[in-house]
Amino acid sequence: MKLTLHRSTFMQELQKVQRAISSKTTIPILTGVKLSLNHSGLTLTGSNADISIETFLSVENEKAQMTIEQTGAIVLQARFFSEIIKRLPEDFFTMNVIENNQVEITSGKASFTVNGLDADNYPHLPVVETTNQLAVPIQILNQLINETVFAVSQHESRPILTGVHMVLKEQQLLAVATDSHRLSQRVIPLGAEHDQFDIVIPGKSLIELSRSLGELDESVEISIMENQVLFETPTTKFYSRLLEGTYPDTNRLIPNSFNTEIEFSVRSLQAAIERASLLSHEGRNNIVKLSITASEVVLYGNSPEVGRVEEVLSYEKVSGDPLEISFNPDYMKKALQAFGDTSISVRFISAIRPFTLEPTEGNGAFIQLITPVRTN
Amino acid sequence: MKLTLHRSTFMQELQKVQRAISSKTTIPILTGVKLSLNHSGLTLTGSNADISIETFLSVENEKAQMTIEQTGAIVLQARFFSEIIKRLPEDFFTMNVIENNQVEITSGKASFTVNGLDADNYPHLPVVETTNQLAVPIQILNQLINETVFAVSQHESRPILTGVHMVLKEQQLLAVATDSHRLSQRVIPLGAEHDQFDIVIPGKSLIELSRSLGELDESVEISIMENQVLFETPTTKFYSRLLEGTYPDTNRLIPNSFNTEIEFSVRSLQAAIERASLLSHEGRNNIVKLSITASEVVLYGNSPEVGRVEEVLSYEKVSGDPLEISFNPDYMKKALQAFGDTSISVRFISAIRPFTLEPTEGNGAFIQLITPVRTN
Repeated sequence: MKLTLHRSTFMQELQKVQRAISSKTTIPILTGVKLSLNHSGLTLTGSNADISIETFLSVENEKAQMTIEQTGAIVLQARFFSEIIKRLPEDFFTMNVIENNQVEITSGKASFTVNGLDADNYPHLPVVETTNQLAVPIQILNQLINETVFAVSQHESRPILTGVHMVLKEQQLLAVATDSHRLSQRVIPLGAEHDQFDIVIPGKSLIELSRSLGELDESVEISIMENQVLFETPTTKFYSRLLEGTYPDTNRLIPNSFNTEIEFSVRSLQAAIERASLLSHEGRNNIVKLSITASEVVLYGNSPEVGRVEEVLSYEKVSGDPLEISFNPDYMKKALQAFGDTSISVRFISAIRPFTLEPTEGNGAFIQLITPVRTN
Repeated sequence: MKLTLHRSTFMQELQKVQRAISSKTTIPILTGVKLSLNHSGLTLTGSNADISIETFLSVENEKAQMTIEQTGAIVLQARFFSEIIKRLPEDFFTMNVIENNQVEITSGKASFTVNGLDADNYPHLPVVETTNQLAVPIQILNQLINETVFAVSQHESRPILTGVHMVLKEQQLLAVATDSHRLSQRVIPLGAEHDQFDIVIPGKSLIELSRSLGELDESVEISIMENQVLFETPTTKFYSRLLEGTYPDTNRLIPNSFNTEIEFSVRSLQAAIERASLLSHEGRNNIVKLSITASEVVLYGNSPEVGRVEEVLSYEKVSGDPLEISFNPDYMKKALQAFGDTSISVRFISAIRPFTLEPTEGNGAFIQLITPVRTN
């Protein structure tokens, strides 16, 4: 393998696949990035136990200005390799695989010789049948992820809850995540008919996917395999393993009758929750209390050691029974973040039943649920 | 104590004194900031075992827009207090000390009540005689610090070497730091005659001092006490303890005859050292090798496990004997950083004797020394 190409263009591709590469893996070759060059271009691959990312830099890519002298493949220790590329002196550089899997990397007067590994020993990525693909705009997919993934469980005690449940049926894609204290669910209508699926994707994979997709104005093709899912754009393939097991039936958790309803501006409630949680974080229970009456809505935070805060909240509309309810402000903060700068309706049954949050202008497409904390 | 003032102006002062406040101290009251209000303004104090910072917000400060209702003093847990101030809803806020050292902090509809401590129990700062003061422009002091402090020892095995040695005599201020592997020394001429001094200031104190002085276009008054030094600007007092003991005689370490001399542009040498150190960091010894002949200057880095690098260096001038010398590239990197974007002369005696680095246009006012590593 021997080629010369534009350094920063290559660096961008390398950084994409590096998202999948961990230096902590127990499989040495997976600390490496696989470079595979044929006459149509250069493929970069990074992988760990959960995800694999493959990007392709075409010989026709004008920014890359690739000069291919000899095709071939090699695996190079990713972190170290990227440090070298980053620090090379010139805009272009040459990689040349010499004997014993050694690679010469030259740029200007600097010449590195680094030890690589045989690309034949790199694990193969799953082969995908290109039927049964679903195309979703990247922006929509990112929104779906950002609105749900924060609610997955961080604990391995129930592994299935560390993933986002995605269900495609009846011309809609539903994503739901819960850690059993709070839940977030988004439904996206799809234009056309698709084969249905029901999968659970690890939350960590989706966070990496969202980062690696970026802000692109393209669509991503989703393919489901036996135990993998592939997200594919014209230049990048992102594979994730799926979680095994049955996801709990979350639909029955969402209540549909209420006794108290209040509308807030997200930004103003967010600021008040931040203030109240300053105190609750110092206490043992980390709870804040919301008191709703017809005349006044007040938020309380308290820590016996440090002090207390109370704040009369601004709201847009209130109706129903008076209520005092306590909850973990961190769940509320995350929920509000996911809504962005809008108005929400918060609906309560009682102080001990989960309450829901929805955009005021919503149509049930995005709903969140928070379980309160009993204080007596 | 009761006053109302501009939140972000107060926050700036609070952040200054917070540099001196550690949450890890074993003396509980030192986790707090002392606020002391009289009719001329508000004094904020933060302190730890090494440094103390006191700032003053005058009632005449137009940005602060202070309304003083009652003078007094209180100590508040600094980290927590600043989190509250940061998150208050309005541009102004009111602090009111009520009973039992509790403080009401109100802004808009938010009202905090936090537990404080009696200001009478806060330790007193040293009293300074205002004779024997030396005025230095902040910019010059910052330069002096940045050119030397990186070379102090990080190890407590020889505590005196963790400080910067500052000597004022014969109308010049000399600062020198060494960790016994490298040394950095700067001399600043002073206009007028001053009482001489010879002190060692902890490197950590100087780093904090430099950060807290910022980019101000003012002078700082330096006063020496028994075991403290005070750096004072119109609004801020910065105290540091001094290190006890005798600083080694570093003057005899600096050689004055040489056999090889080479001139480099700092930026281009820096980039090459960065590249070579990529390899040396992977090896056990962390050394790079410089080879100087009349025709070529080459830098080598090598790690048996990972690979090697060699780079023909650009230089401005070379003279004297050919030489091969090995050294720790990290010392070189730090030394080059301190020079900034200029040209330097590097002068060698032999492969086993310390070599010096000086700005080519320098006049001995700034010199650095690096001890090579013997490789056989």
